[in-house]
Amino acid sequence: MSQTVTEFGVHDIRFPTSEQLDGSDAMNPDPDYSAAYVVLRTDDGAEGHGFCFTIGRGNDVLAAAIEALRPYVIGRPAPRTAADLAALHIELTHDSQLRWLGPEKGVMHMAAGAVINAAWDLAARTAGLPVWEFLAAMTPEELVSLVDFRYLTDALTPAEALEILRAAEPGRAERAARLRAEGYPAYTTSPGWLGYSDTKLVTLAEQAVADGFEQIKLKVGGDLDDDVRRMKLARAAVGPDIRIAVDANQRWDVPDAIRWMTALAPHEPHWIEEPTSPDDILGHAAVRAGQPVKVATGEHGANRVLFKQLLQADAVDFVQIDAARVAGVNENLAILLLAAKYGKPVCPHAGGVGLCELVQHLAMFDYVAVSGTWDDRVIEYVDHLHEHFTDPVVIDSGRYVAPDAPGFSARMRPESIAAHRYPEGPVWQARRTTEEVNS
Amino acid sequence: MSQTVTEFGVHDIRFPTSEQLDGSDAMNPDPDYSAAYVVLRTDDGAEGHGFCFTIGRGNDVLAAAIEALRPYVIGRPAPRTAADLAALHIELTHDSQLRWLGPEKGVMHMAAGAVINAAWDLAARTAGLPVWEFLAAMTPEELVSLVDFRYLTDALTPAEALEILRAAEPGRAERAARLRAEGYPAYTTSPGWLGYSDTKLVTLAEQAVADGFEQIKLKVGGDLDDDVRRMKLARAAVGPDIRIAVDANQRWDVPDAIRWMTALAPHEPHWIEEPTSPDDILGHAAVRAGQPVKVATGEHGANRVLFKQLLQADAVDFVQIDAARVAGVNENLAILLLAAKYGKPVCPHAGGVGLCELVQHLAMFDYVAVSGTWDDRVIEYVDHLHEHFTDPVVIDSGRYVAPDAPGFSARMRPESIAAHRYPEGPVWQARRTTEEVNS
Repeated sequence: MSQTVTEFGVHDIRFPTSEQLDGSDAMNPDPDYSAAYVVLRTDDGAEGHGFCFTIGRGNDVLAAAIEALRPYVIGRPAPRTAADLAALHIELTHDSQLRWLGPEKGVMHMAAGAVINAAWDLAARTAGLPVWEFLAAMTPEELVSLVDFRYLTDALTPAEALEILRAAEPGRAERAARLRAEGYPAYTTSPGWLGYSDTKLVTLAEQAVADGFEQIKLKVGGDLDDDVRRMKLARAAVGPDIRIAVDANQRWDVPDAIRWMTALAPHEPHWIEEPTSPDDILGHAAVRAGQPVKVATGEHGANRVLFKQLLQADAVDFVQIDAARVAGVNENLAILLLAAKYGKPVCPHAGGVGLCELVQHLAMFDYVAVSGTWDDRVIEYVDHLHEHFTDPVVIDSGRYVAPDAPGFSARMRPESIAAHRYPEGPVWQARRTTEEVNS
Repeated sequence: MSQTVTEFGVHDIRFPTSEQLDGSDAMNPDPDYSAAYVVLRTDDGAEGHGFCFTIGRGNDVLAAAIEALRPYVIGRPAPRTAADLAALHIELTHDSQLRWLGPEKGVMHMAAGAVINAAWDLAARTAGLPVWEFLAAMTPEELVSLVDFRYLTDALTPAEALEILRAAEPGRAERAARLRAEGYPAYTTSPGWLGYSDTKLVTLAEQAVADGFEQIKLKVGGDLDDDVRRMKLARAAVGPDIRIAVDANQRWDVPDAIRWMTALAPHEPHWIEEPTSPDDILGHAAVRAGQPVKVATGEHGANRVLFKQLLQADAVDFVQIDAARVAGVNENLAILLLAAKYGKPVCPHAGGVGLCELVQHLAMFDYVAVSGTWDDRVIEYVDHLHEHFTDPVVIDSGRYVAPDAPGFSARMRPESIAAHRYPEGPVWQARRTTEEVNS
C-alpha cells in the first residue's frame, strides 16, 4: 500500500490566556498561548501532527515559515523508518537558502521542528507505538543515524554516541516496564506564575504537595523583595523536603543574577533557571561560578551548538530541552546524547500548548535508552490547556504516566482547532465583540 | 509640520543570480540574492527604506515578519532624533510576544533590523545627512542612549561606552575630512567564488590588483586540493604584498578547520573567515588556538550577546559586522563599542543585495567617532547588483568613497523593484516562460 503525503495543512491557533495571567513571568507579562500547527495527511488516511509553541503575536510568521517547508513533504512518501526520518531532518535543516534565515535558529528552525515532529507522529502511529517506544525500539546504530553531527564532533563523535547508546542497551526492557508501572517524576510550575496573588501561590503550593509533587517552581525576577517574600511563603507552605526551583526567564544581566541569587540562596532554591540571555554561554558559566545555586537553562536554546557549548563550558547543572524549539526529535536526540556524554541530567521544559504532551516522550526515551536513569531528573508540568488534546498527559501522584497511545500525543482536538483559529475562530470573534461592547 | 508614518510597504524582491554562480560558496551553491524590503512613507512625502538580505527561498517568510511589525510604525510620528530611534529599537526588540520567536535572532530579529534601518534612513534624510555623518554628529551621550545594554554589562557598561566615545571625540572633524578626501579601505571578494573557473579566478585577481585593492578573498572549504591550487594561483597572480583572506562559510567542524587551515597556512592567508558554526564561540576560540591563521567571523552573528562572547573568549581577530542581520544601526553600535572595548578591528561583511551600501556608513562612523582608526580595517566589496540602487557605493582605487547623499544609501530603484518582485515581476515571469520552453 502506498503512503504518500497528499495534504499539508497549516493553522494559526491561539488561546486567550492573557485574560487570566496564566503563564505570566518577568519577561512575558501577557502571553496568549498559541500554536503554529501543521497536519500532514497521506493518501491512505494516516495523519501526523506537529506544532511550534508561541505566546501570541508572530504566530502567523511561524505559520508562514511552516508553509515554506511544504515542498519538502507534499507529494512525497511518508517517512516510516529511522532512515526516512534522518533524511527529512537533513533536507529541512540543510536547505542552503532557508538556512540563511538562521542558520538553525529562530522562526525557520522552529518551523522545521514542527514539520519534523509531525513526521515522527505519523511514523510512530504507522508503527502503532508511542514515540518514546518507537525510539526505544531502534538500534543504537539507527539512533546514531538520526543525528546531524555537523558542528558536534569536537565534543561528541558518532562513535562516542554509539558507545553511550550501546552501554544503555542492557536493561531497556526492565526500565520500560518500570516506567509503565511507576511513571516519570514531574514537577509543577502551576503555583508560581508572577501574576498570581500570595494567597493563590500558597494555596496552589499546598495543593501541589497534596497532589504528590516533590518539586515546585516559582517565577522570579520582577522585584527582589517580592521574590524573597514569595520564596518564604512557598517554603512555609511546602515544608523543608520539597524542592523549590526558581525561574528568572532571562530577566537579568550576569551581575544582577549573581546579586539576586545570592540573596535568595538562604531559602535554598533547587535551581535558578534562565538567569540571563539564553545565548550567553559564558554568562551562565559566570552565574554558576558566582553564586551557590545550581543553574538550569535550555528552553530557548536555539540549537545543538548552543547546548554543546553550555556543556563544554560547564555552564549548567541541568539541561532543559524543549520539544518544539529545536529541529524536532532528531536535534533533541543530539542534545540528549551530549548531556549523557557530559554527565548532566536532562530536565525538560514544558507547559505552553502541548509541550508537556510532546516532551514526555523524549524524557522517557532518555530514561529507557540513553542516560538509563531518572535520578535528579524531572519533567516540568503545567496544568494548562491539556483538554484541547486527544491524548492529554496523565499525571498521577506527581509523575507522568507513560503514554500508551501511538504517536507523539501531539494531536489537538478538531473542535479546539476550529474554535481557536486566529483571527477568524469563534473564540476570537466573540472576544472582539466583547471588546466592542465594553469600549 | 507633522511627520506621521502613513504607509508601510513590504516587497519580496529577488534577483536570479543563481544563473551565473555569482555568490557561490561551500555552503551556498545556488543563491538567488534577494531582499525583503520595507518602505516607510510619511504624510509630508518623506521616505525611509530598509531591507533584509536573503539568498532566495524564505524571502517571503521575512516579508511576513516585517509585516508583523507594521503596528509599531504606522500612524505614529516618524523618528527624527536619537531618543526616537532608541525608543523604536527597544519597542521592536522587547515586544514580549514577538521576542519569543527568537529571542533576538533569526527571522524576527532580521525583520526588526530592516524596519530600524528604514527609520534611520528616514531620519538621516530628514536631517539632510548621510547616516555616517548623522551618527557622527551625535554627542557621546546620545550615542550611548541608542544602545540596549541588556546582557552586556558584564563586558561593557554604559559608563565604559561613554568613555570610549568621549576619547574619540577630539579629532572627529579631522578624520571626517580625511575620510572624504581618501575614502575607506576596501577588499574585494569578486575573484573568489567557488563556482568560478581557475582562469576566471586569475583574471579577476589580477584585475583586483590593477584596480587598486590591497586585499582579495577566496572561498574555500569544498575540497582541500582545489583550495591549495586556487590559493597558489591567486598568490601567483597578486604577488606577495596583497593580502589574501579565505572564507569557509561555516563549512567545517572544529577539527576539520584546524586540519584544513594548517594545510593552507604556508600560503599565508590573511584570515580564515567563518571556519565553523557562527554560533560556536568556543569552537572559534579552539580554531584560533589550534592553527596559525587569524580568525574572522560575524556576518551570521545573531546578536550583540554572541559578539560579546566572541570578544570575552578571545575567539576572533577580526569582527565582521553585517548591517542587516542584527537589529539595525542600534545593535551594530553596541557591537562597534564592544569591539573598541576589546581592541579588535571591525571589518564589515558586505556583498549580497545592498549590504555594501548600508555597511559603509557604519565603518565610516566607527572611524570618525568610535575606534578612531582604520588600521587593520577594511570593508568587503563585491561588485554585484549595485546598479539597482539610487545611491550605489563608489569605489575608487580600492577604497569606498564616503557617501554624500542623505540617508542610508538603501534606496532601490523603483524600476528594479518593479522588475524583480517575486513571483509576479517580469524578470521572474520571463524566467518561468523560458523554463517552460526548455522543458
